[in-house]
Amino acid sequence: MYEGVVQDLIDELGRLPGVGPKSAQRIAFYILQTESYDPTRLAEVLTTVRDKVRFCEICGNVSEQPTCSICRDPRRDQSLICVVEEAKDVVAIERTREFRGLYHVLGGAISPIQGIGPDQLRIRQLMTRLSDATVREIIIATNPNVEGEATAAYLSRMLQAMELRVTRLASGLPVGGDLEYADEVTLGRAFEGRRLVG
Amino acid sequence: MYEGVVQDLIDELGRLPGVGPKSAQRIAFYILQTESYDPTRLAEVLTTVRDKVRFCEICGNVSEQPTCSICRDPRRDQSLICVVEEAKDVVAIERTREFRGLYHVLGGAISPIQGIGPDQLRIRQLMTRLSDATVREIIIATNPNVEGEATAAYLSRMLQAMELRVTRLASGLPVGGDLEYADEVTLGRAFEGRRLVG
Repeated sequence: MYEGVVQDLIDELGRLPGVGPKSAQRIAFYILQTESYDPTRLAEVLTTVRDKVRFCEICGNVSEQPTCSICRDPRRDQSLICVVEEAKDVVAIERTREFRGLYHVLGGAISPIQGIGPDQLRIRQLMTRLSDATVREIIIATNPNVEGEATAAYLSRMLQAMELRVTRLASGLPVGGDLEYADEVTLGRAFEGRRLVG
Repeated sequence: MYEGVVQDLIDELGRLPGVGPKSAQRIAFYILQTESYDPTRLAEVLTTVRDKVRFCEICGNVSEQPTCSICRDPRRDQSLICVVEEAKDVVAIERTREFRGLYHVLGGAISPIQGIGPDQLRIRQLMTRLSDATVREIIIATNPNVEGEATAAYLSRMLQAMELRVTRLASGLPVGGDLEYADEVTLGRAFEGRRLVG
C-alpha cells in the first residue's frame, strides 16, 4: 500500500513475532516521524547481535563469552543445577534471588506436535555435566504445561539411576491470585501439594 | 538482566511504541534463535528509511520523491481534496477504492492538551492549494473524536468564506456492528444522520 521503503519497513517489522500489520504500521510511522528517536541504534544492534552472542558451552545460556557469567562465577553453588527450557527462564529465576546454583538450558521442551524429541534438547550435555560427583541435586524447572511436564517426566526417568536428588518446582495457586479464578488443574495441584501450617 | 548486546537489543526494541519489556524480550530471543530470520534486512531499512522518505511537497503524504504518487497521478480528480490527520489515513481511504480525488495530510489534529494548535498543522499549505479555482469540494476526514471534531470545526470556519463545498464524513453505526453495543454518542449521531429509505 505504501511506496517503496516505507512498505519495506512495515513488512520487516511485521516479520517480528507478536507484531501485526497495524502495529508494524504504527511503529514505522513512529520511526519516520519522531525526531528524537534514532533508528540507527537498533540497526547497529541488529547487525552485530548474531555475531556477538553465543550460547554458553556449559549450560546453554546466552553469553558473549564461551561460558556465561553464571557458570564463570565461583561463588555459585556447583552442587545444584536448575534445568530450564529457555534462557529467559534463567533471567526470571535470577530475579527472585532465591537460587544460587547453576543452570542448564534445554533449548525447549519435548513436543511431538512440533517434532521436538529428547534428541533436539540439550539433555546429552546435561548428562555429561553429571559425570563427576559434584552435582547433588537437579531442580527441574520446566514450564507447568503439557510439554514441560512431559520433559520433566522424561528427565526424572533418565536421572533415576543416578545418585542424585531430583526435584520439581511446586505447582499451586499463584501468590496474589484469586482462588475463585484458579483453573481446576491448578486448584487440584494446590490440594495435592498442601502443607502443614505452623 | 542480560549480558551486553542481548540487553542492548531488548532495550532498543523496548523503545518502539507498543512494545513492552516482555514483548521486547520475546522478539530479541526470536531474532537470536531463529536461523531462518535475517535481522540485517530490518537493520538496512532502519538505516536508510529516514534518508529516503520525505513528505510530499503538495499534500504532506509520505513519498520517496518530492511529490507523492497520488499528487503525480493525472487521472485523480483535481477538484476534490480529502483532508486527513495522518498519512496512514490516506492508506485507509485508498483501500476503500471509493475516493478518486487528492489528499491533504494535516500532520495531526488540534489538541490544546498536547500543545498542538492550528499553526502546528499543515493548514496554511492547504489554503495555498485553494488559491486557484481548481478545487470545488473539501471533504474533512479527520477522526471522529474530540481532537478530530475540533479540527473539522476550525477548518470549516476557515473555509466558509471561500466558494467551496465543505463536507464531513458521515458518523453512525459501523457496518457489521451491533446496535446493542454502540455507544450513546455514535447511536445519537446515527439518529441525527438518518436517511430516507427507498
